[in-house]
Amino acid sequence: MQVTAVYPGTFDPITNGHLDIIERGVRLFDRIIVALLKNADKEPLLPLDERIEIVRAVVARFPNVTVESFDGLLVDYARERGAQAIVRGLRALSDFEYEFQMALMNRRLEAGVETVFMMPSEAYSYVSSRLVKEVAHLGGDITGLVPPEVVRRLKARYAAGGR
Amino acid sequence: MQVTAVYPGTFDPITNGHLDIIERGVRLFDRIIVALLKNADKEPLLPLDERIEIVRAVVARFPNVTVESFDGLLVDYARERGAQAIVRGLRALSDFEYEFQMALMNRRLEAGVETVFMMPSEAYSYVSSRLVKEVAHLGGDITGLVPPEVVRRLKARYAAGGR
Amino acid sequence: MQVTAVYPGTFDPITNGHLDIIERGVRLFDRIIVALLKNADKEPLLPLDERIEIVRAVVARFPNVTVESFDGLLVDYARERGAQAIVRGLRALSDFEYEFQMALMNRRLEAGVETVFMMPSEAYSYVSSRLVKEVAHLGGDITGLVPPEVVRRLKARYAAGGR
Amino acid sequence: MQVTAVYPGTFDPITNGHLDIIERGVRLFDRIIVALLKNADKEPLLPLDERIEIVRAVVARFPNVTVESFDGLLVDYARERGAQAIVRGLRALSDFEYEFQMALMNRRLEAGVETVFMMPSEAYSYVSSRLVKEVAHLGGDITGLVPPEVVRRLKARYAAGGR
Amino acid sequence: MQVTAVYPGTFDPITNGHLDIIERGVRLFDRIIVALLKNADKEPLLPLDERIEIVRAVVARFPNVTVESFDGLLVDYARERGAQAIVRGLRALSDFEYEFQMALMNRRLEAGVETVFMMPSEAYSYVSSRLVKEVAHLGGDITGLVPPEVVRRLKARYAAGGR
Amino acid sequence: MQVTAVYPGTFDPITNGHLDIIERGVRLFDRIIVALLKNADKEPLLPLDERIEIVRAVVARFPNVTVESFDGLLVDYARERGAQAIVRGLRALSDFEYEFQMALMNRRLEAGVETVFMMPSEAYSYVSSRLVKEVAHLGGDITGLVPPEVVRRLKARYAAGGR
Repeated sequence: MQVTAVYPGTFDPITNGHLDIIERGVRLFDRIIVALLKNADKEPLLPLDERIEIVRAVVARFPNVTVESFDGLLVDYARERGAQAIVRGLRALSDFEYEFQMALMNRRLEAGVETVFMMPSEAYSYVSSRLVKEVAHLGGDITGLVPPEVVRRLKARYAAGGR
Repeated sequence: MQVTAVYPGTFDPITNGHLDIIERGVRLFDRIIVALLKNADKEPLLPLDERIEIVRAVVARFPNVTVESFDGLLVDYARERGAQAIVRGLRALSDFEYEFQMALMNRRLEAGVETVFMMPSEAYSYVSSRLVKEVAHLGGDITGLVPPEVVRRLKARYAAGGR
Repeated sequence: MQVTAVYPGTFDPITNGHLDIIERGVRLFDRIIVALLKNADKEPLLPLDERIEIVRAVVARFPNVTVESFDGLLVDYARERGAQAIVRGLRALSDFEYEFQMALMNRRLEAGVETVFMMPSEAYSYVSSRLVKEVAHLGGDITGLVPPEVVRRLKARYAAGGR
Repeated sequence: MQVTAVYPGTFDPITNGHLDIIERGVRLFDRIIVALLKNADKEPLLPLDERIEIVRAVVARFPNVTVESFDGLLVDYARERGAQAIVRGLRALSDFEYEFQMALMNRRLEAGVETVFMMPSEAYSYVSSRLVKEVAHLGGDITGLVPPEVVRRLKARYAAGGR
Repeated sequence: MQVTAVYPGTFDPITNGHLDIIERGVRLFDRIIVALLKNADKEPLLPLDERIEIVRAVVARFPNVTVESFDGLLVDYARERGAQAIVRGLRALSDFEYEFQMALMNRRLEAGVETVFMMPSEAYSYVSSRLVKEVAHLGGDITGLVPPEVVRRLKARYAAGGR
Repeated sequence: MQVTAVYPGTFDPITNGHLDIIERGVRLFDRIIVALLKNADKEPLLPLDERIEIVRAVVARFPNVTVESFDGLLVDYARERGAQAIVRGLRALSDFEYEFQMALMNRRLEAGVETVFMMPSEAYSYVSSRLVKEVAHLGGDITGLVPPEVVRRLKARYAAGGR
């Protein structure tokens, strides 16, 4: 059996928590597609191209992981790419209900794609893209929370006056 | 890649919610071992042999599912059986924290076995072994909540004065 | 339309939180039956007769409230008594999931009886029968948490060495 | 006793989950007023007039349900309309705390109006107006999640480039 | 040992729940600095100067409480002011996870400042700045939920057409 | 101001999570009394004397921490010992509601003693006395989860056939 899993997200930016999920996923699935949502409503900090570039760099060491972008319904995209699973990280209770609601809706829209939940290391239980950006914006040190590449880029961006 | 997943539990009795998780799991993993805990502290309603017999009957239609029992640490058992994953169903928030605590402890005891969480159909969101037994004990109809085999056995047992 | 609501429980003992729910319920339903479960598994502190006597005394001022006991399935009892609703108090999140699971099971067993949830005053958010007994057992003052009748009886009982 | 209940909301759009609550409510209350909030801060997808028109169409079969709009404090409106109860649906834990905070505030503002919580069918546990709009916007099929009238209107609106 | 605690917030406006936390804090810490965040993203109702003026007025009776404003990282500010603790009020579960995530992040950024959580009176469990503003905006009475000074100012502001 | 805090518990056995809270507490309070409950209902694994001996050994390096036992109401004990605070660790959401209920009850019984909540390191988020005993009982390695002294004693006890 060959199983492909889609790991969807905005990855604005990718954190060590996301990376931890990918590392765990490659041991269970034959292929993982990290799928960046193209048209998110909220304005991202990093443009899609830059986010894809970063994710590609940090997952380059995993031969069975590819990075793509998608728009439209996640389950339509997953089916087109031949995926059987959607992987989601569950850090905390507050993730839980939103994720379950989405997973039930996705199952209804496409019964052939199953959502599986994985747990990042407790070391990343408090790390989210939003909080990482907030800390970096205020000049805090985010080393160890995100890949070095992200540390460098966020520093550059906030030094240039971005927010 | 061949992935074996252990689906552990007491299954006293197996419910349609458990069965739903197994059906979803067989589409993602090469092999699933349903593993019944031998020495649970609390007195089960059905003896281990009968529980194994029932589970074997209801999963007989899945060629890649086997049914076993184990004692000792779950992760020791999983490693011995060559499993890479432990599957757990998450129905509700109240499951969530206990399951996460167990999964983090299991990860610490054995880093090579990863816990993945799956979601049963919302139709079984309120079905637990405990509640099914309580309803059957009070004479309520549990058809549709558990496999027919279980309906029959619980009726017989409670008619005989069990509790 | 005449609506009868059953307010089920162990009431071991009735607290001011329970009483608060009853007071709110009488403004919405034509008749409320406070229904004490006969054969609870766990050993109650107060025998059923005494609990019924206490509840009858504290609800005597409500003309449309009656006090009864029942065994078997709650929904069977509710249907037999011609009730359309089961009333449950929700104090806290920890009540929530258990109550929802029970309500969904009850709805499946008897579609004609609807569970409605009401909220006691925030002044009773921390008051439970279990905690009241624990405090009384350790000699703490429970005045204001339970009706005066209950204060008196628990004092007598614990003074006599009960637990 | 004649009891009137207000069922307030934005209903942008009304879902089958909302409708399920109304169907359950008509069996417990003499009269239900579905009350659409006039001046919500966030921009609705459907204008108030259209939302009222849709709700009126889908509840036309219930003789004791009327549809109105209101602005100002909900409890002031409820009192003016002679209501004793506010009905709210609780789908999930995430609803719970917000709803309780609102209910406690409403009780403080107007002690004569009681909030009661009802539970939609588990089949609608993942259905919210927000998620339905998101799925429809991305071209997903929302049949069975909302009344047919809403399916038709959302399709028309998104085909015309709305969001 | 002299312990200084920072109690940070937007205080737009200060509520009786905030004040309750401060009153409890002064019994445990030698000095409390109420610290208003300067550059919050969301537009506050009351300008910083006015919020500081109000907080100063309502805490004037506590000799060991001072009121300041800060920008940048909270932990940098706390360290500069010689604080060993950050005080946060926990009213409800929904506060819990956000607060824990922030506290873990703050601990990582500055190990020398410890977050402690305190519980306001249950009488304020439903009182938040946001809800108080909403009620006042709709003409509801907020007496008893916020200090009299705040009642007066919010009335004036909303009468003048603010929102 | 001299502040004494009581840190109550069963400590059967003390874990590194408990120890982490004590280490954080000594930086905020002048004196901490670790208070072991004498007459817990449930049968402990380790007798009170042994638990006191272990806790004394592991906190010996903190000059301002003392270890005692108590029975009766916690707040009565705290008042007698001149304490102004009760310290409780909050690891997870499931702790939250029970702790809040207890804290509100304790406040009602004794307004002069305030409960403060502290957060252990995320590294101990899954460590509880109960789970540690379960793992040790099944032969798992608990090094790093409890002080070395506890590792040694639990091994001895379970080797001797205890449970």
